[in-house]
Amino acid sequence: MQFCMVPYNLLQTKAAYLDTGAWSNKAIKEAKIFGEVDVVASSKDTTYSYIPKDYKVPSDADYFHITTNNTIYGTEIKEDMDCAVNLVADMSSDIFSRPIDTKPFGLIYAGAQKNMGPAGVCMVIVRDDLLARCPEDIPTMLRYSTYAAKNSMFNTPPCFAIYTVQLVLKWLEETIGGLDKMVALNQKKAGLLYDYMGQSDYYRATADDDSRSLMNVTFRLPSEKLEAAFVAAALENGLGGLKGHRSVGGCRASIYNPTPLAAVEALVDFMKEFARKNG
Amino acid sequence: MQFCMVPYNLLQTKAAYLDTGAWSNKAIKEAKIFGEVDVVASSKDTTYSYIPKDYKVPSDADYFHITTNNTIYGTEIKEDMDCAVNLVADMSSDIFSRPIDTKPFGLIYAGAQKNMGPAGVCMVIVRDDLLARCPEDIPTMLRYSTYAAKNSMFNTPPCFAIYTVQLVLKWLEETIGGLDKMVALNQKKAGLLYDYMGQSDYYRATADDDSRSLMNVTFRLPSEKLEAAFVAAALENGLGGLKGHRSVGGCRASIYNPTPLAAVEALVDFMKEFARKNG
Repeated sequence: MQFCMVPYNLLQTKAAYLDTGAWSNKAIKEAKIFGEVDVVASSKDTTYSYIPKDYKVPSDADYFHITTNNTIYGTEIKEDMDCAVNLVADMSSDIFSRPIDTKPFGLIYAGAQKNMGPAGVCMVIVRDDLLARCPEDIPTMLRYSTYAAKNSMFNTPPCFAIYTVQLVLKWLEETIGGLDKMVALNQKKAGLLYDYMGQSDYYRATADDDSRSLMNVTFRLPSEKLEAAFVAAALENGLGGLKGHRSVGGCRASIYNPTPLAAVEALVDFMKEFARKNG
Repeated sequence: MQFCMVPYNLLQTKAAYLDTGAWSNKAIKEAKIFGEVDVVASSKDTTYSYIPKDYKVPSDADYFHITTNNTIYGTEIKEDMDCAVNLVADMSSDIFSRPIDTKPFGLIYAGAQKNMGPAGVCMVIVRDDLLARCPEDIPTMLRYSTYAAKNSMFNTPPCFAIYTVQLVLKWLEETIGGLDKMVALNQKKAGLLYDYMGQSDYYRATADDDSRSLMNVTFRLPSEKLEAAFVAAALENGLGGLKGHRSVGGCRASIYNPTPLAAVEALVDFMKEFARKNG
């Protein structure tokens, strides 16, 4: 819903979007319903294997929209960025994976279903001056100012989902020890996979070095046949969900916040064993 | 969200609405954003104490919108109705309280949070020919045809809420014995309250005889002071949530499907005792 709410509330003349994959594309499609969209850069040329770096955001854009993590292509914007126009970020799949400086952002949105809790609730952080821009003549439930004015209780909120998010955030603070600890653990987890693949001729990470996601590690084997055998054998060994998205094929290890280090270690061990047997 | 989705998808020229209270009003307000709205009748003159009966729905209306149960005012459309134009019903607060003949309806919507399950999911039943009318140039997530085409899984669905709805529906079928049994129980529950109040000079049901809700029984005591004392004393006796909505005052017993008969019997006993002591 945020793909539509962002432009409905904030697009007055023109919006700038960075095209880094499937979710960016969906956001761009919805924004075009509401006004002019300037796609400042795209990595579509290499099946989104990198985060574009050389682009110019027009200074008259109402906002610049980025997708910080791309689940299908395994790329991520892992550093805070600054921007002369209002920065809007879809952080659905890497929120709370690392500390962020919210200052450069005009609006951040994130569906709960990756690092926060069950599907069915979305977190939005929006700067007061952008809230003041929300048009009064758009549907009440699609206006950010409606939620802000009523402390997110204009309508009956999805209480169970919100309660569960609270439990997850407590776990993040009390068990993990906060976002600094979380990002260190996430870097360690992803590092184990990327480092091993760096030494291996058998597995190849699909994302460029400087664009690799800490949440979704995408990789290929020497052939599609071996990839299918790998996914099936992994599942037999208790390692599920390793099939890449159907639109790109290959393999993908999604290692969001809750995935323990031991699971990643087990995966690397299994990868070594599989390569040895099928190399 | 349905208040906005109904007109966004179905209002081409003009829509007719029946004004029976707060939820109707919200629906009317949103519809006006999208086109001409003809409010065919309203019971606002008596603080919504009845369901209007004498009205004419213009034959050129794209649809006629009703709210079957009005939680604040304690009124309900308890019988199936027919209509020459497409009938659209908000059944959020009385869905599954009785069997309904879906044939006269073009679209039925109902938030889960009363009789179905936890807040955060909404059921929509829509006739195929109305689906075909959904404009293609509106936001994807606001188009009914998007959900229909993808079996309600265009985006990640709120799985926990849906699973819980399934458990509630199983209870309704297997424990209660289906909708015929459910409505008999609901009539018995509401009947106990209305019948007692019919004999009492102390309590007065606020809704007209032929418009009374089986879900929300609204009533007054001789004074606001006694109402406050009643609500407080009831709570002390384990009977909570009896305060009327802040917009109308008075008292309200919400006796949705899950409220057992014994709870209503206990309430009637308490009411008798309170009237005896404070009469």
